[in-house]
Amino acid sequence: MKIKIAQFGLGPIGIETLKLAATKSWVEIVGGVDIDPQKIGKSLSEITGIPGLENKMVYASFDELAKHEKPEVVLHTSVSRMKTALPQLEPIVKAGVSVVSSCEELLFPQLKQPELAKQLDDLCKKHGARVLGTGVNPGFVMDTLAVCLTGVCRSVEKIEVDRVVNASLRRGPLQKKIGSGLQPDEFRQLFREEKMGHVGLVESLALIAHALNWKIGKINETCEPMIAKKFIQTEYIEVKESLCCGIHHRAEATDGTKSIVLDLKMYLEAEDPRDAVRITGDPSINAVLHGGVHGDRATVAALVNSAPNILRAPAGLLLMTDIPVPRVG
Amino acid sequence: MKIKIAQFGLGPIGIETLKLAATKSWVEIVGGVDIDPQKIGKSLSEITGIPGLENKMVYASFDELAKHEKPEVVLHTSVSRMKTALPQLEPIVKAGVSVVSSCEELLFPQLKQPELAKQLDDLCKKHGARVLGTGVNPGFVMDTLAVCLTGVCRSVEKIEVDRVVNASLRRGPLQKKIGSGLQPDEFRQLFREEKMGHVGLVESLALIAHALNWKIGKINETCEPMIAKKFIQTEYIEVKESLCCGIHHRAEATDGTKSIVLDLKMYLEAEDPRDAVRITGDPSINAVLHGGVHGDRATVAALVNSAPNILRAPAGLLLMTDIPVPRVG
Repeated sequence: MKIKIAQFGLGPIGIETLKLAATKSWVEIVGGVDIDPQKIGKSLSEITGIPGLENKMVYASFDELAKHEKPEVVLHTSVSRMKTALPQLEPIVKAGVSVVSSCEELLFPQLKQPELAKQLDDLCKKHGARVLGTGVNPGFVMDTLAVCLTGVCRSVEKIEVDRVVNASLRRGPLQKKIGSGLQPDEFRQLFREEKMGHVGLVESLALIAHALNWKIGKINETCEPMIAKKFIQTEYIEVKESLCCGIHHRAEATDGTKSIVLDLKMYLEAEDPRDAVRITGDPSINAVLHGGVHGDRATVAALVNSAPNILRAPAGLLLMTDIPVPRVG
Repeated sequence: MKIKIAQFGLGPIGIETLKLAATKSWVEIVGGVDIDPQKIGKSLSEITGIPGLENKMVYASFDELAKHEKPEVVLHTSVSRMKTALPQLEPIVKAGVSVVSSCEELLFPQLKQPELAKQLDDLCKKHGARVLGTGVNPGFVMDTLAVCLTGVCRSVEKIEVDRVVNASLRRGPLQKKIGSGLQPDEFRQLFREEKMGHVGLVESLALIAHALNWKIGKINETCEPMIAKKFIQTEYIEVKESLCCGIHHRAEATDGTKSIVLDLKMYLEAEDPRDAVRITGDPSINAVLHGGVHGDRATVAALVNSAPNILRAPAGLLLMTDIPVPRVG
């Protein structure tokens, strides 16, 4: 049994998602959606280089695509915010088609957009569709994995997740996005303007709290620059000593007795990259993914792997903690 | 909303399970079942020491209990084999009541008892009940956790799980159960008679293969004694040099291109106890739970935590990979 898949958003991540999907025996790719006039009307083979999709076209909207094809799942990789995602998702859901999205806020849209989340959930239930936000981070290493590890605990007092990413090994745009080369004050100003930092960190924390039924208060969030201790040169960028070379983004919350701390460092020449989950409880758990999980390659995997998994769950706006345990598809 | 829980089996693990359940705000304990005439007719407070259960009694069978109480979930901790579990489970399922069981073979009963598994699944669906086999091992560290970690992989070639348990820190009966003090030949004879080794290891492997849809062939299983390199003394036992001090149980299978290897060492004075999952794939993942997860304390947690989780899944004979991600309850 194949799953008919369409791709919404044919930027670099969308193309990577489609390339991975094309390697899976259970996937049938039926088309793509993008707003870029250069792409509309071309075949997916032309856009992605995947052979065999010469008759599978890029459409200007989901409704256009739906006139020709009947996808079961749309992989959605176009935006980070719930507000911009919603108008893109509504026509898909109204057609009874399910969505796996890389939209970071969709991991737990109830946090910042509770009314829009309710509206989307109602729409999903009405039309028999599922919508899931997922990825590696947010989506796995700083949330789902931590929740999963508590499953063998009698009680839990504190959950701490440390993710350290060596940005030197990542793509050029990411090296810039984390503020490399900025003056520390410029970096801090950008964070205040919500133009710097990791979108999804507070959603990860809220998802953990929701899954464990912890009534946490306000999430305290800080984002400080990592500072280059010496001149740094990568394939894409040069950073002088004392300038920014990455982010240190942290979110914390407590319900008075229990607490969650998420700490993300993503910077050039980071040492000991890892994903570590420390659970203080009975028993305590000290889990380390040595070397960490590579963001770009793995996020695409999380999206594709979730397509069969959401079809195993009932209709609705789904959370990673609502659906069966993740697994490679 | 409380969940009404009854305990089937009031041995040491059953009592521990009930004690943990009693600490949870969402649990209402309604009664117990045991075949021991010394326990039948007594109150759960008398048997377990838990206050407030003076009116909650131990019955000789589930049917007796059901005349007085209406549990929603039965925690079942009495046997390791599907064949002996089934007659105990049938009356519960026929009453439409769900079960979380520590029965090791129930983790994946389709492996050794496919017909009985089918029969139980049909019965569950007919009566709207769920049955789940779980625990720490089998149930989490050598199966569910490994499946979960593949969720961020584009592809997987090999899954290796190493569990090293320091039996010196475990209860006395376990130190004996792993063959401590036996001659190596006695140990090997007991393994051939299926009286030695870890029940559930092959089920863990089969569950991983099932979740990933890998068509593996025969599971190769070996169980060798760990040999004391010097005189060992614990609180419970003494072992002379060159005698057995634990087990080294290993299961392997392949589908020709992909493979799964589970390696369990449980022995006295084990060094570097840990649960390690190595996934060879894209990306590869190297996860280590340093210190490991304590079997006795955590198994009880896995049982209690699964009670709300199975109620989120549809009726049937459930696998850990069918239900939402585990989490502390």
